[in-house]
Amino acid sequence: MTGASTIAPRPMALVFDLDGTLVDSVYQHVLAWHHALLESGIELSIWRIHRKIGMSGGLFTRALLRETGRDLDEDVLRQLQERHAVAYRQLAGDVRPLPGTLELLAHLTELGCPWAIATSGRMETAGPVLERLKVPRHVPIITRDLVRHAKPDPDLFLAAVEKLALPAADAYVVGDSVWDMLAARRAGMLGVGLLSGGYGTDELERAGAYRVYDDPAMMMRHLDELGIRRL
Amino acid sequence: MTGASTIAPRPMALVFDLDGTLVDSVYQHVLAWHHALLESGIELSIWRIHRKIGMSGGLFTRALLRETGRDLDEDVLRQLQERHAVAYRQLAGDVRPLPGTLELLAHLTELGCPWAIATSGRMETAGPVLERLKVPRHVPIITRDLVRHAKPDPDLFLAAVEKLALPAADAYVVGDSVWDMLAARRAGMLGVGLLSGGYGTDELERAGAYRVYDDPAMMMRHLDELGIRRL
Repeated sequence: MTGASTIAPRPMALVFDLDGTLVDSVYQHVLAWHHALLESGIELSIWRIHRKIGMSGGLFTRALLRETGRDLDEDVLRQLQERHAVAYRQLAGDVRPLPGTLELLAHLTELGCPWAIATSGRMETAGPVLERLKVPRHVPIITRDLVRHAKPDPDLFLAAVEKLALPAADAYVVGDSVWDMLAARRAGMLGVGLLSGGYGTDELERAGAYRVYDDPAMMMRHLDELGIRRL
Repeated sequence: MTGASTIAPRPMALVFDLDGTLVDSVYQHVLAWHHALLESGIELSIWRIHRKIGMSGGLFTRALLRETGRDLDEDVLRQLQERHAVAYRQLAGDVRPLPGTLELLAHLTELGCPWAIATSGRMETAGPVLERLKVPRHVPIITRDLVRHAKPDPDLFLAAVEKLALPAADAYVVGDSVWDMLAARRAGMLGVGLLSGGYGTDELERAGAYRVYDDPAMMMRHLDELGIRRL
């Protein structure tokens, strides 16, 4: 037909963050870090820990120590990460998938929309949570163990689209923190923010979020805004 | 002197919220509520609990139950409050005064600036925390037990200025939540927001905050912005 556009349709993929995006685990991580820091004699306000969470573990502990004016020490950093893991396990019994997570992931699979998970956490911590999400075996899961640098570096998200064999520009990042939105921009991907990690709409939009929803349940009702449709 | 103003100087008083404003206890309260709700078979996202905290306990549990679409039941409400108190005690060992709290309160006392504390919590929960703040005996402490309605009703703040024998217009409310800012406006007082409860600047300003600081330490360095000076 004369005049019809020759632009090929470009279906979009979704790369999900885990903590605060698919599972309701941010506040437990925050209090576990606070407890670990206190055990190491470091007093830091909890809201500051919350604001830094979602960064790579290394950057995170460095940022926290900088706020306390302390010097870096590899032994202290390793000890903090161990103490956090112990404290988190104490609180992890209350961790649940966020509302709509299971339905959204199943719906995307059913639509044929490619999706992946990319988390700053290590497989050791993320493993038990991922099992509860019933992730199909073909879905790529990128953990901290698999890349050189975690968020706000783009490596995790770039590794995810590489596994999906798609260009970065054809995928959204879905995350709850400003670090997800910033890493998405560095990866050349659009960011979708969720409020379920406890950040405000304003913070996510300022970090570059294309759209902001409450949680996976609300995102599922608005998939048309993202141009997600049956392939 | 001809032309000199006859406006009498009006020194300002400060009425402080407690949790998230003077002590770093918001996140423990949030997780304790989450645990209590799970024990009662009610699944609710943690960030939604965080957004409602600081309201009166009654309004809070009613708001939470409304979000879950449940009917109100006085037995469930009472059981929730009891379960929250038990879970909070488990986490309260890590609660610390926020940075600058002790210095700010001591400085205000030394300046002769009248101040008070007004909290939505009950004396049972607030008591141990107040001891750690070394509050002088003459400072009014208004708890939930002393008024009919808690925030966002203005009763707690109005009771505080009544004890200080000052007009409401001559006092700031200092708080971390939008409920503090809203109750301040209903009381005819100016609100000062602190980020230490984990809300964003934007949320506090939209709720009417006159100024927003990180925490008591930062507020102390900016007392001139509030016109607080030696009497």
